[in-house]
Amino acid sequence: MAILCLSTVLPNFNQWIKNLHAIDPTLDLRTKDNPGDLSEITSVLAWKANDEDFKQLPNLKFVQSTGMGIDHILECKSIPEGTIIARIVDHDMKEQMAEYALYGALKACRNMQYYNRDQVNKEWHMRSRILPKDLTVGVLGLGELGSYVANTLKEYGFNVIGWKNTPPQEKDASIYHGQDQLPEFLSQCNILVCLLPLTPETQHILNRDTFAMLPKGAYLINPARGGHVKEADLLEAIQSGHISGALLDVFDTEPLPKDHPFWDEAAIEITPHVAAMTNPITASEQVAENFRLVREGKLPNNLVDLNRGY
Amino acid sequence: MAILCLSTVLPNFNQWIKNLHAIDPTLDLRTKDNPGDLSEITSVLAWKANDEDFKQLPNLKFVQSTGMGIDHILECKSIPEGTIIARIVDHDMKEQMAEYALYGALKACRNMQYYNRDQVNKEWHMRSRILPKDLTVGVLGLGELGSYVANTLKEYGFNVIGWKNTPPQEKDASIYHGQDQLPEFLSQCNILVCLLPLTPETQHILNRDTFAMLPKGAYLINPARGGHVKEADLLEAIQSGHISGALLDVFDTEPLPKDHPFWDEAAIEITPHVAAMTNPITASEQVAENFRLVREGKLPNNLVDLNRGY
Repeated sequence: MAILCLSTVLPNFNQWIKNLHAIDPTLDLRTKDNPGDLSEITSVLAWKANDEDFKQLPNLKFVQSTGMGIDHILECKSIPEGTIIARIVDHDMKEQMAEYALYGALKACRNMQYYNRDQVNKEWHMRSRILPKDLTVGVLGLGELGSYVANTLKEYGFNVIGWKNTPPQEKDASIYHGQDQLPEFLSQCNILVCLLPLTPETQHILNRDTFAMLPKGAYLINPARGGHVKEADLLEAIQSGHISGALLDVFDTEPLPKDHPFWDEAAIEITPHVAAMTNPITASEQVAENFRLVREGKLPNNLVDLNRGY
Repeated sequence: MAILCLSTVLPNFNQWIKNLHAIDPTLDLRTKDNPGDLSEITSVLAWKANDEDFKQLPNLKFVQSTGMGIDHILECKSIPEGTIIARIVDHDMKEQMAEYALYGALKACRNMQYYNRDQVNKEWHMRSRILPKDLTVGVLGLGELGSYVANTLKEYGFNVIGWKNTPPQEKDASIYHGQDQLPEFLSQCNILVCLLPLTPETQHILNRDTFAMLPKGAYLINPARGGHVKEADLLEAIQSGHISGALLDVFDTEPLPKDHPFWDEAAIEITPHVAAMTNPITASEQVAENFRLVREGKLPNNLVDLNRGY
């Protein structure tokens, strides 16, 4: 089993290869510079790979994502049907996501999005204290990340509700599901955290119509994918004052283009896709384990369900 | 016992009077509009009062602050020696202070002060993840507020050390004290939270010399008093890059003047003296209780030690 490392954004896979070889020196890891006989490649380690590269691999069986998301893999239409796909599920990434969401929730709770705008206008204007328990945080998406973030915010003291696409396994009044219950869910969210996977169903789920369902002054935190948000609609909702501000880690185009209007909006706080970064050391253990399982003819861990798209 | 309400910044004491009368309808509360016979006034409820007003009160015995700080009372040199002074110690204010400090610590932990500056320059530049346990937060001042904030940040996962003026009652390697140990304390603080009382000893404690003792890239959180910081020195330290940024709630002059350079510094986040706001409902119970104790010839709670100045 030879493994090819493919990415259009990672400059090289040095760190990954070093860590993986430290765990299993027998792994036949190759890069595009020196891929050898492409018919030997049965696995790919991928982060935002070029679709064209998959066309050269006649014997591909398995694609491992280096991150939690696999939308970048599903976009590669040259990957043959039936290819096994797996992702990383890393506790530290859940911690990072919870920390990022807590920062954003505290920001909104302390009126910082208003004070940030006041600072640009050099205005000194005290606002009333809001208690975390009096703010409802809605978490869109209750997978590995969403559930963990929801619990962290609940433990801090926020009132937390969640929404998922499919019905929850156990009845829980704080969990909404399906398109029908989306308006009722959104109407309660003073703070909305998007942690959905990006699929055709969730593409542009945050748009003019759904923003209008939020209570006035709602604050948006999006560390999921740029494709979830219709960016022009968000800017309009913020400039009208209906949405008070946003903490955004992901964008339609990354890096965010220099002429993008988000840069200049004081109520938007921008981070460069760093909300939850894969730790190559802990993640390498999962990846090496998956290559071992696949080599032994077994299914890898954190297998992606292609019918759901995540 | 008649009580006069004095402030140069509170537009009126309506809310205070309403809450205090709900607890004890017999309290003889007066305002400057209609103070009656000034020789009857034995107590004052004060927030940033005008020193001149105290000269009119020949029988003053007790001054109650409406907040945790009493520096605004000590500045009034017309208050006769021997006057009893008390302050508010409110659990909710400790909560608010801990929340404000946690917001600032998360900000620094997530490199937000750098991203905020990058946003102004429209730069997309990812920075390495820092774990809270790998950041040392130093809390200056370990009174009611400082101890509470230190515990909250420790519970979150930061490495926390503290500094106080006097030796701690029990030996604790994480607690430094006195001027001699200040350099050793400061040299470890990646994040510095100032929660000192403002006294002649702590006036301008944060200046060019002490900033130079901090490690490069340190972040400052000051929700105490503007007088603790030499503002020109802070600006210089931030612009040189030695200090990475600051979250500031208090200033030499409040409201912060329109022409103050802090407004324009993207690495400084400004809040308008709202880090811990007195809740007039819970605080009123303490104030009513103190007026009752003083009326009965007893000492009030949360008595200020004038030798220490807090």
